Amino acid sequence: MTTLDAGDAQHALELAGIVAFALSGATLAIRKGFDAVGIVLLALLTALGGGVIRDLLIGATPPAAFRELELLVLPVVAALVAMVAHPVINRLFRVVLLLDAAGLALFSVTGTLIAAEAGIDPVQAAVLGIVTCVGGGVLRDVVARETPVLVRADSDLYAVPAALGAGLVSALEQAGAYTPTAGLLAASAVFLLRVAAMAFDWRAPVARRPRRAAER
Amino acid sequence: MTTLDAGDAQHALELAGIVAFALSGATLAIRKGFDAVGIVLLALLTALGGGVIRDLLIGATPPAAFRELELLVLPVVAALVAMVAHPVINRLFRVVLLLDAAGLALFSVTGTLIAAEAGIDPVQAAVLGIVTCVGGGVLRDVVARETPVLVRADSDLYAVPAALGAGLVSALEQAGAYTPTAGLLAASAVFLLRVAAMAFDWRAPVARRPRRAAER
Amino acid sequence: MTTLDAGDAQHALELAGIVAFALSGATLAIRKGFDAVGIVLLALLTALGGGVIRDLLIGATPPAAFRELELLVLPVVAALVAMVAHPVINRLFRVVLLLDAAGLALFSVTGTLIAAEAGIDPVQAAVLGIVTCVGGGVLRDVVARETPVLVRADSDLYAVPAALGAGLVSALEQAGAYTPTAGLLAASAVFLLRVAAMAFDWRAPVARRPRRAAER
Repeated sequence: MTTLDAGDAQHALELAGIVAFALSGATLAIRKGFDAVGIVLLALLTALGGGVIRDLLIGATPPAAFRELELLVLPVVAALVAMVAHPVINRLFRVVLLLDAAGLALFSVTGTLIAAEAGIDPVQAAVLGIVTCVGGGVLRDVVARETPVLVRADSDLYAVPAALGAGLVSALEQAGAYTPTAGLLAASAVFLLRVAAMAFDWRAPVARRPRRAAER
Repeated sequence: MTTLDAGDAQHALELAGIVAFALSGATLAIRKGFDAVGIVLLALLTALGGGVIRDLLIGATPPAAFRELELLVLPVVAALVAMVAHPVINRLFRVVLLLDAAGLALFSVTGTLIAAEAGIDPVQAAVLGIVTCVGGGVLRDVVARETPVLVRADSDLYAVPAALGAGLVSALEQAGAYTPTAGLLAASAVFLLRVAAMAFDWRAPVARRPRRAAER
Repeated sequence: MTTLDAGDAQHALELAGIVAFALSGATLAIRKGFDAVGIVLLALLTALGGGVIRDLLIGATPPAAFRELELLVLPVVAALVAMVAHPVINRLFRVVLLLDAAGLALFSVTGTLIAAEAGIDPVQAAVLGIVTCVGGGVLRDVVARETPVLVRADSDLYAVPAALGAGLVSALEQAGAYTPTAGLLAASAVFLLRVAAMAFDWRAPVARRPRRAAER
């Protein structure tokens, strides 16, 4: 229902996205010198945080992360694997970034659909789709005491592709024209935009005439 | 119902308060060198965060910010205006501070009323009134990696005027003596107290005999 | 129902745990040079944050902290006492650490039971038990801009004893074998493990081969 209805392949990609999000949390925790508790915590927050915030906002309690056991187990396993294999994961960072882009793409679509099906109006549903894919990363960076990658001027476009996908899906859903095929196309567009943003260093604009003492 | 029932003037002031909160988030984001995504995010968090937390705590999902479109649109517009016009906004900071005080005053009253009407007991309703007006600023500062202004010893009274207004409204509501006129008077008192605190640098007390290595 | 059913002694210990959590928040705020608002805020967040997050996740709104007045009043009183008596409290830090361990132990058990009784599955209920006892401390550290003690490699085991207690209680509850006596034994085990961890500096493992530029 709340999926793209494309079956097993899509479900596998969603779980791959969860794992990629978890690995990004775990590797940051390792880089910061956190202990095993911190590594597991950051993996869980990054992988599940966005969806949990969305579910709380639409009143769907307990959130999916506390209903479907695999959603809770996968990030913990990813964190433990990262603890012993992080040099390998660091070498595979391009693969992790691609899986992360897949997660971003799929969750922007499914997050929007879940919100729309809960009766949320179109614009707000798209916002909740964006929250689904970027919320976890913000929680990760706040707990790790990093400036959120999401807001950094030197980070490649991340929320913008998600916003385009979420907006498109919400408009189609609102017009009664949403189909699983359209969802897959929207997710593909988000994925390609994100990959292109990384390849060509596309960035969001900053404020006009930034003040001198900008970065403190 | 959950308003001061003073009609259009009050509604306009509430929206002005939302805009002032959004501008304080956007200008902090600009000062920190964040990109457009960060500027919009901080505007939304600051303007809507307190009300969203209150609504989640009283179980009113989706929160007002995800039901009334203008609440979501206004902070985004304010953020975009701030991106191009922030030198002007910086020169108008006294106006923004006055609008912020108006927001503080109105939301301490309406936040308390919304909680009381949801069946929350008096003391807790007043606390939720305070949460409504200070929650967004704390989220703003946490995401921007600043020590929350709310807790800084060198910041003028902010939560204290809100607490007085929220407590007064909650007591009147509990006694069955609340009227829209009383609400407007309470909001006016909060506003004047906040403005006086800024004018005369009134501050909250700190701990007795602060330790030597206090601020790190 | 959601308690260990051991009556007044247990209730007194729970309130002592709340006070200990509040004191840890208040003393951190004092050490950071925060004002009275910050001291009260950190006391409340630390004492009540974990339970509030759990209640939001299981859909139990308003959270207990906004239903039972003593839960809100006690941390405020503890914060005000800390403001004038923090040199005494600093000298009594071993007592505070023992009360904190008692809070950790009791809340890992009662938090798990509350989640299980809300219909949450066993593994997830145990996770919510852990969230109950560690969530407040993470909020405290995030607002105070400290690396969360929970994730620091140089902190003694805290979440691990809680996880063992929560897991044990959840397994017993699932097997229909939970009794108040079992709950008290589980809490005692958590308490003793935590005290032993502090006495012998037991720590959680870190990642294999930490990278050179680990702690920034």
